[in-house]
Amino acid sequence: MVKDSKVSLDFLFHPRSVAIIGASSREGSFGRTFVDGFIRIGFHPFYPVHPTEKEILGIKAYPSIKEIPEEVDVAIVLTPPATVLKVLEECAEKYVKGIVIFTAGFGEKGVEGKRVEERILRMARERGTRIVGPNCIGLYCPSSRLLSFPLALIEGLPVESGKVGGFSQSGSLVDFLTLSACARGVRFSKVVSCGNECDLSAVDFLEYLGEDEETKVIIAYMEGIRQGRKFFQIAQRISRQKPILIWKAGVTEVGARAASSHTGALAGAGYLWEAMFRQAGIIGVSSSEELLDCLLAFYYQPVPKGRRVAIVASQGGAGVGTADACIRLGLDVVRLSDRTIHKLTPMISPVGATVDNPMDLGVTGGLLAPEVYGEAIKTVAEDENVDMILVIATPVEKGIRSICESAKGLSKPVLAALTKIPELARAEYELFGRNGVPLYPDPKRAAFVLSRMVCYSEYYRSE
Amino acid sequence: MVKDSKVSLDFLFHPRSVAIIGASSREGSFGRTFVDGFIRIGFHPFYPVHPTEKEILGIKAYPSIKEIPEEVDVAIVLTPPATVLKVLEECAEKYVKGIVIFTAGFGEKGVEGKRVEERILRMARERGTRIVGPNCIGLYCPSSRLLSFPLALIEGLPVESGKVGGFSQSGSLVDFLTLSACARGVRFSKVVSCGNECDLSAVDFLEYLGEDEETKVIIAYMEGIRQGRKFFQIAQRISRQKPILIWKAGVTEVGARAASSHTGALAGAGYLWEAMFRQAGIIGVSSSEELLDCLLAFYYQPVPKGRRVAIVASQGGAGVGTADACIRLGLDVVRLSDRTIHKLTPMISPVGATVDNPMDLGVTGGLLAPEVYGEAIKTVAEDENVDMILVIATPVEKGIRSICESAKGLSKPVLAALTKIPELARAEYELFGRNGVPLYPDPKRAAFVLSRMVCYSEYYRSE
Repeated sequence: MVKDSKVSLDFLFHPRSVAIIGASSREGSFGRTFVDGFIRIGFHPFYPVHPTEKEILGIKAYPSIKEIPEEVDVAIVLTPPATVLKVLEECAEKYVKGIVIFTAGFGEKGVEGKRVEERILRMARERGTRIVGPNCIGLYCPSSRLLSFPLALIEGLPVESGKVGGFSQSGSLVDFLTLSACARGVRFSKVVSCGNECDLSAVDFLEYLGEDEETKVIIAYMEGIRQGRKFFQIAQRISRQKPILIWKAGVTEVGARAASSHTGALAGAGYLWEAMFRQAGIIGVSSSEELLDCLLAFYYQPVPKGRRVAIVASQGGAGVGTADACIRLGLDVVRLSDRTIHKLTPMISPVGATVDNPMDLGVTGGLLAPEVYGEAIKTVAEDENVDMILVIATPVEKGIRSICESAKGLSKPVLAALTKIPELARAEYELFGRNGVPLYPDPKRAAFVLSRMVCYSEYYRSE
Repeated sequence: MVKDSKVSLDFLFHPRSVAIIGASSREGSFGRTFVDGFIRIGFHPFYPVHPTEKEILGIKAYPSIKEIPEEVDVAIVLTPPATVLKVLEECAEKYVKGIVIFTAGFGEKGVEGKRVEERILRMARERGTRIVGPNCIGLYCPSSRLLSFPLALIEGLPVESGKVGGFSQSGSLVDFLTLSACARGVRFSKVVSCGNECDLSAVDFLEYLGEDEETKVIIAYMEGIRQGRKFFQIAQRISRQKPILIWKAGVTEVGARAASSHTGALAGAGYLWEAMFRQAGIIGVSSSEELLDCLLAFYYQPVPKGRRVAIVASQGGAGVGTADACIRLGLDVVRLSDRTIHKLTPMISPVGATVDNPMDLGVTGGLLAPEVYGEAIKTVAEDENVDMILVIATPVEKGIRSICESAKGLSKPVLAALTKIPELARAEYELFGRNGVPLYPDPKRAAFVLSRMVCYSEYYRSE
C-alpha cells in the first residue's frame, strides 16, 4: 500500500493527459459518449484508442495506447472483459500512472472474476500503477475538467469547483446524485466511483478527501468495506474537521446478498454499522434523497450548537405536524423567550395567527405582508432559547426574499420547507438555492436533516 | 344532529347559488380573489355582497344578503370577526341552507371565541342552517365548479371530477395538497376544509364521503376529533369499501398544544390514534408528502394481495438500498421463480446485470435496450411468488414508455422511482402520471407506500 495517499492520488484527479481505450464513433456507443463529452467539457489533451478507427469526432485515434506519441497519465478502459488484461499490459508498458476500468464482469460475477481481479492487481503493483474499478464509472474533478460519468457526460456538469468530495460504490447512483446536487447549487471538489475496488478502495478515497484542502464536506454511498478498522479510525479523525455523510446500503440480509452480486463487496449487519458510524461521528442516512437532503444543509448552513428548534410557519396545520416530526426525531420544540414574543406579537395580525413555537404567522405572513417572515426569523435567531430555525415558507416571492435575506450570515442554521411538489416550484427552489437556504418539499424532511445535524454537532463538540 | 348526512350535505357541494359576503374590488384583498376566481372557474350564479360597492369586476354587488332578489343556497363569509354574528342573522333571515365561515378568531383564540361559536351554532340550529368553519377555507367540488381555496383560486384547479374525496382540519394544507395532487393527475370529487367545526365536523364529512358514490378514495388531515367512537365506527365500515388515508397531526404534547391554538381541537396521544387507525383499517401517514405519495398509489394502482415485492432496477446500488428499505418496512423481497429467471436471463447482457431480486438490468435496461424493462415487469407480474413490483426506472424515454405499457391492466400494483430530483424530471413525471404509474424521487418512498398498501390490504381481506 502506498503511504501518502494524498500525493499518490492527486495524479488521478489532475492528469496531464488521458487515453480513452474503447473510444468509438458508433452512434449510441459508450465510446462515443466519452469522446463527445470530453470535447464538450474541454478536457485536453486526450487520446481516443480504437483498433481500426483513425479519427473519432475530429480527434485523431490510435490503434493502441502504445502508439500514442505523448505521455499518458490516466487511461480509461471501456473495452470488453476479455480484452482487459491485454489492454492493462499495454498500459503498464506505457507507464500509465492510473487506470480507470469501466468494464464490468469481474469480481461481482464470482470466483473466476475475482481471480482476474487478482491478476490485475498484481500487474498494477509490479508497475506501480494504481487502479480505480473495475465495474466503476470513474472520476469527476471540475477544476481539471475531468468527467467520466456517462449520464453527466450527456447532460453536462459544472466546471466550477466546490467544497464537496464524494466516493461511491455504486456508479449510477453517483452519476444521478451528482447531477441532482449540482442542480441544487452544490459544487464538488472531486468525486470518484469505486466499483469493485480491486486496488484503490473507499479507505483510500476517504483518506485522500480528508486530507484534501479543497474538500470541506464528504459524502459517500457504500455497500461493504474491506479494511473496517482502518476506515473508522480515519473517519473518526476526519469527522473532527469535516462532516462525513454516508448512505450505507446492504444492511439487511437480502440487501447484503444483492450488494455481493453488485460490486462483490461484503456487506454486514445494520446495527454494527450504526454503532460504528456513531463512534466515528459519521452522519448515516438510508436513501439517496436523505443523502442529498442532508448534503444541502451541511453545504449551505452552519452546524447548530444544540437541539432546540423554532418552527416559523404561516400555515397552522403544517406547524402542528412539523412539531410532531421534530419531537419524534429528538429535537426540542422550546418555548420562545418573552422578549421574542413581545417583539413579534405587534407585527402579526391577531386573527388566525400565534406567536408561539410553532409560530403561525397566519395570513399576514402567508399572503398580506410576507416580509414579516424576515422579522420573525431575525428575532427568533436572537432568542437564546433557540439553536436552529425551521421555516415553513410562503410561496409568495416577497416572502421568499425576506426569508433568504434574514437567514444570511446567521450563526444558527435556517432550513426551509414549502409544501408544494418541486415540479411546481422550480423558481422557488432556484431562489432559495441561490441564497443558500436549503429547501425541502416536506417539513418532516427538514426536521430529519436537523436531527442529523444535531447528531454531528454533538460528536463534533464532544471531548 | 341531522341523520342522513348524504342528503343533507349535497346542497353544500352543489349549491344552486352562492353569496360572497365580504367581496371586494380592492387589489390584493381576499374578497377580490374570490370574485375573480369565481368568474374564472365559471360558477354561476353568485352574488357579491359589500356594504358600499355597487359592482365588483363587472358583477352587480349587494349591500347585504337580504337585498339579493334570488334564493341563495350557500353563503361564504369573509368579513371581520366582529361582524360575523350580524351577517349570520341576515343569512338566517334569507333562509340560506349552508354557511361557510372563512373568518378566523373564534374557538382557536380561547374561551371567549368558543362562546361566540356556541352562539353561532344555536342560531344555525334554530334556522336549520348548516355551518362549515369558522376558520376554514371552504369547498372544492369540480362538477359544480365550486372552489373557495384561496391559493387554488389564484393558480386554478381542474373542473374535471375524479374519485378522491377529502377533508382537512387545516385550510392552507388542503389548498397546497389539492394543487399538488392535481398536478400529478389526481382528480377530486369533493374536498372540504373543516376549520373549527363549530357545527359540521370531520365525522359528518367522513360519513358523507363514505356514502358518496363518486368518491372511491378518501384522504384527510386531522388534528383532533370530537366524536371519536362514532368516527372510528364509521371509518371501520367505510374502509371495507374504500381506502381512507389520514395524516393525523398533533400526536406529541407540543404538537397537541399547537393544534389547540390552531383550530381549537383536542388532539391526543399518538399510540392511541395508531391503535384506533389499525382497528378501523385507516391508512395512517405523518406528513403531507407521505399523504400525497400514498394517495397516488391508491388512486392509480390496484391493492396488492400480499407482501411479496419484486424490485426491478438498472442501477445495482439503488436496488441494494431499496431491498434494505423494503425489508425494514416489513415487505418480503422474495426469490423469483425459476420460470422468471429462465425467461429473463437471455434478454439481459450478463455483464453488470443480475436476474435476481432485486433485479439489476444493468446497462441493457438503463441505456442500450431500455425496452427490456417492459419484458421484465410483465414476466415478474406473472410470477406467482410476487404480489407487487417496485421499478427503479431509467430516465430514457423509451424505457419509461415500456414500463408504463407493461404496467397497464395488471392486477398487481406497479410503483416506480427515479433517482433524479423532480425539478429536473418534469417531463418524466408527466409521462408516468399520464400512464397511471405513480413515480417517486426515492425508491425508499415507494417502498413506504407499498408497505401502507399492504397494511390496508390485510385489513381489507381480513374476516
